Amino acid sequence: MNIAVLGTGAVGQALAGRLSGLGHTVAVGTRDPEATLARTELDGMGNPPFAAWLGDHAAVRLTTFAEAAAEAELVVLSGSGSAALDMLTAAGAQHLAGKPVLDISNPLDFSAGFPPSLFVKDTDSLAERIQAAFPEARIVKSLNTLTAQLMVEPDLLGGPTTVFVSGDDADAKATVTDLLTSFGHQDVIDLGGIETARGTEMFLPLWLRTMGALGTGLFNIKVVR
Amino acid sequence: MNIAVLGTGAVGQALAGRLSGLGHTVAVGTRDPEATLARTELDGMGNPPFAAWLGDHAAVRLTTFAEAAAEAELVVLSGSGSAALDMLTAAGAQHLAGKPVLDISNPLDFSAGFPPSLFVKDTDSLAERIQAAFPEARIVKSLNTLTAQLMVEPDLLGGPTTVFVSGDDADAKATVTDLLTSFGHQDVIDLGGIETARGTEMFLPLWLRTMGALGTGLFNIKVVR
Repeated sequence: MNIAVLGTGAVGQALAGRLSGLGHTVAVGTRDPEATLARTELDGMGNPPFAAWLGDHAAVRLTTFAEAAAEAELVVLSGSGSAALDMLTAAGAQHLAGKPVLDISNPLDFSAGFPPSLFVKDTDSLAERIQAAFPEARIVKSLNTLTAQLMVEPDLLGGPTTVFVSGDDADAKATVTDLLTSFGHQDVIDLGGIETARGTEMFLPLWLRTMGALGTGLFNIKVVR
Repeated sequence: MNIAVLGTGAVGQALAGRLSGLGHTVAVGTRDPEATLARTELDGMGNPPFAAWLGDHAAVRLTTFAEAAAEAELVVLSGSGSAALDMLTAAGAQHLAGKPVLDISNPLDFSAGFPPSLFVKDTDSLAERIQAAFPEARIVKSLNTLTAQLMVEPDLLGGPTTVFVSGDDADAKATVTDLLTSFGHQDVIDLGGIETARGTEMFLPLWLRTMGALGTGLFNIKVVR
């Protein structure tokens, strides 16, 4: 499949690398490819600059948000929550129309430090705002409940765990669920319409505090029933 | 141990029954014991009236909030979130001072129907409000992330799962953790201070939607790491 991954951070790298490794044609979208490639410092999370990553992933192409989205059959939104709407606007509504958009973003507000609060919650969600802003795109919220590495390599944990999908379009959810299965996810719970993303976005405060208690982000929840 | 269980609903019954079965001396507190015993209709969740439950649990005593708390070494707050502060006020700050208070309540707001929203969240929590209102009590938030039956009988599920504790007093958390272990919980994660209850309280929206997707509340999460 032709896939656009919007965002060059840890989540974008994890998704792009894994999707490319599985044989998909992957274009990573960024605001300004030259500026992205010119960066030589570590990012805020201590990861190497994108150019170094790209050197190890020759099959992946770096381009603009708009060009990546234009050619894609599926779009992955892997930027920060605060940038999500701007990134999709730069990608272009006409390039998103009719396509499944896997939304991994979380509405984290770091303005008061760590742990962050959520800038939308409870009676609304970032996923709903995105769906409302791009009504012709078929938004599927998923993978926002675990760390980047485990999104694409859940087998790194000692046993199977659970991920969730939320969205209004059944076909788009099926496409995303197939991708998740190809990553190794064995338990994908379909929560329902896009408004159920309120649940997974509001899980972040517990995720963050569990990370604090365990001293690692390498964990995920399993829904045992 | 002498334990007061404040609240006569499904959570109060589950806790009181299990604690009594484990050999603790249990008093269930309610606003007006005569009124509670006079009720003959099913409750809002379809459970039998409290008097029927009490008939099957002869070792459990029903009394007022204040009398139950006065004699207790540990207090369990098992009422609805909206009633929590009033129930503790009726129990009496002087009867809570110095004691571990296991707070199971969730700040659910059903005023706009189902699913409920949260009446406090993100930058505050019900547990913090309770601790602030009763500064001499040693509040421990726990068990608010799973259904009543599984709080006290986690072995009903196919494998071990996780529960969390949040609180400012290490001794009170140790006392509560011992109780949880006696119920069968094998994985108790100490999230930290009382403000970490924001995490478990904000898990409710995901819990509710997972219940909707699975068609049952008989599930719990396991933190796999």
